[in-house]
Amino acid sequence: MQIESVDFFYLSMPEVLDVDALLVRVEAGGHVGWGECEAAPLVSIASLVCPLSHSACKPVAASVLGQRLESAEDIARIGQLVREQSLDLLQADHNLSGIDIALWDALSQRLDAPVYELLGYPRAYPKTPYASQLFGDTPDETYAKGRRVAELGYRAVKFGWGPFGRGSAELDRDHVVAARESIGADAVLLIDAGTVWGDDVERASQSLAALQQCRATWLEEPFVSGAHRAYRDLAARARSVKLAGGEGCHNYFMAEHMLDHAGLGFIQIDAGRIGGITQAKRVADAARQRGITYVNHTFTSHLALSASLQPYAGLADHDLCEYPVEPKALAVELTREHIVPDAGGQIALPERPGLGLHPDLDALHKYLVDVEIRVAGRTLYRTPSLAL
Amino acid sequence: MQIESVDFFYLSMPEVLDVDALLVRVEAGGHVGWGECEAAPLVSIASLVCPLSHSACKPVAASVLGQRLESAEDIARIGQLVREQSLDLLQADHNLSGIDIALWDALSQRLDAPVYELLGYPRAYPKTPYASQLFGDTPDETYAKGRRVAELGYRAVKFGWGPFGRGSAELDRDHVVAARESIGADAVLLIDAGTVWGDDVERASQSLAALQQCRATWLEEPFVSGAHRAYRDLAARARSVKLAGGEGCHNYFMAEHMLDHAGLGFIQIDAGRIGGITQAKRVADAARQRGITYVNHTFTSHLALSASLQPYAGLADHDLCEYPVEPKALAVELTREHIVPDAGGQIALPERPGLGLHPDLDALHKYLVDVEIRVAGRTLYRTPSLAL
Repeated sequence: MQIESVDFFYLSMPEVLDVDALLVRVEAGGHVGWGECEAAPLVSIASLVCPLSHSACKPVAASVLGQRLESAEDIARIGQLVREQSLDLLQADHNLSGIDIALWDALSQRLDAPVYELLGYPRAYPKTPYASQLFGDTPDETYAKGRRVAELGYRAVKFGWGPFGRGSAELDRDHVVAARESIGADAVLLIDAGTVWGDDVERASQSLAALQQCRATWLEEPFVSGAHRAYRDLAARARSVKLAGGEGCHNYFMAEHMLDHAGLGFIQIDAGRIGGITQAKRVADAARQRGITYVNHTFTSHLALSASLQPYAGLADHDLCEYPVEPKALAVELTREHIVPDAGGQIALPERPGLGLHPDLDALHKYLVDVEIRVAGRTLYRTPSLAL
Repeated sequence: MQIESVDFFYLSMPEVLDVDALLVRVEAGGHVGWGECEAAPLVSIASLVCPLSHSACKPVAASVLGQRLESAEDIARIGQLVREQSLDLLQADHNLSGIDIALWDALSQRLDAPVYELLGYPRAYPKTPYASQLFGDTPDETYAKGRRVAELGYRAVKFGWGPFGRGSAELDRDHVVAARESIGADAVLLIDAGTVWGDDVERASQSLAALQQCRATWLEEPFVSGAHRAYRDLAARARSVKLAGGEGCHNYFMAEHMLDHAGLGFIQIDAGRIGGITQAKRVADAARQRGITYVNHTFTSHLALSASLQPYAGLADHDLCEYPVEPKALAVELTREHIVPDAGGQIALPERPGLGLHPDLDALHKYLVDVEIRVAGRTLYRTPSLAL
């Protein structure tokens, strides 16, 4: 079959400023595939349709439309074409992410098998979802948030961002102690610094003792993604606490460099950023070879969650999985079906062809943003209809 | 003074498809600074003005407008703010590049000193321009192109792209031999593979012998920027031929990783891509510390050339400089003044405040592209007037 259309849909909750979504639809041979870019919608739309401006700045759509789609090799070939033809178009990696996911969705419908099977995994292992949420504004609020998800049955909990790292190391300690107390001694505790320390190893080190004392499994993103030397220096001091990072990686090489040089215990990959399921699977393979644990990065819809789980679905030892427990209405309504913890507290991928989840087009209409881009008198983009 | 406006201008030659330009103008305290992003214009415009879509996807303009501009520290601070507030907006690095250049232009007018002085260089050393051009379609054409620039007096010549690396190693050899013969035994010969071999070390190795035999000073971009392992493996085999690369780096960390892990002899930085003069200067410092030679990457206007020379103007031993000898009319007409080789074949930066070159606004009107971006009924961008 041939790729007949690639459409981008900018979705937004007008009353919430920072949780927009970019939904991708591809049509090929009577199949409709859906994906999501974890990316700025307007910039990604411009990158899909921009005029050719330099030989290595072709619009991303030009490398996708009309291509053959019959096998995994076709998806890899299309991705390679996008990277070559849009080499100097920085946003292209984010564009490719949602497109690649949608291509896998369409192809695996065509081949009547779940995506993880096409990736070479005989089965998908259930994962232990960690409840991913923000720190409270105060240690008491952090405690209350931890209690809530512990009572919901989560045996692994991540606290991140908010005040952590922005004040004193003592305040950090109070939050981490409250977090550990709230979830109980046996639960997995994960801490996310949200790149707050830039590349300042000394400041980061000051908050390590509390993490060691409270037996945090990982410290996530103490630094910006590129600061490998800072990561490596901190890793040497962190001992029992492993470093986690990688969500900012937007191509395979960035992740490989982190695996090789940042001293990570866990690499966290967002399939909606790294170039899709294809590139995420390459990272999972590379992580496994190096004895580093792969984890998904997902904080939005269950379509994005399914896409992020496929690349390591077959790795039984890579057990943790990020599971957003504070989703906004747009993320919830984005799909008709949802991936929910079973009685044992585990989550599993749908045993259906494709990603196994479908956008709720009726619900999404109200979030669709009107966009129009005109260049030199020609309309290059106008929001398409969600109806098929 | 305060930054009052940031405007992006999309310039294009309708009859030539791949040499568009993105001119940047900032106004602050009565001074007008100009810069250029080496970037896809439409995507960069979208990234300048996009709605806030995620907490780390703020429009780039929001981190620049209204900021204080009194010192080099202010420029560094603004850059840091852009990187933080637009962390997940991939195109932001390219946006920042042109903005940073324009800020340096405005600031150094205000302080009445050339940019390189504000960067800490007591003087700017003249550079040896290498004539940068494409291979001919045949070895005979390559020979003719080499003769032409040798007769113009260039003592260093680069041949790149075209058929090189796309056919057999024998054809590569014929081109390289023709190139060496055309420029004479004493001239500096540089070869640019334009990432043609992806990360295929074996294929790249097959073309090494001819480069060694013809005494090429460097082999540029045998691989894509991220393929450090391939670079390193090839560097070990290349011996007398040094590897050059880095033009794809769009932030300081990418360049640092190449310096540390790619086995380079030369690092080539485009100030219009890496985040501007500020980040380019950081790379020049890091290269010098590691004994790696810094070279500019420039293939467009002389405004971009001046910006690319400032970061290493004071490094006497880093003598080579890329000098485009096949510019299109848009690149030539972009500035009123030009940087031309002197009687000794050397080029020098203008001894004037700012970048020392001024856009030719009258000439540029005919290249200005009308762009309009509307989101949810609001016009976020419409091409501004070039007139002040």
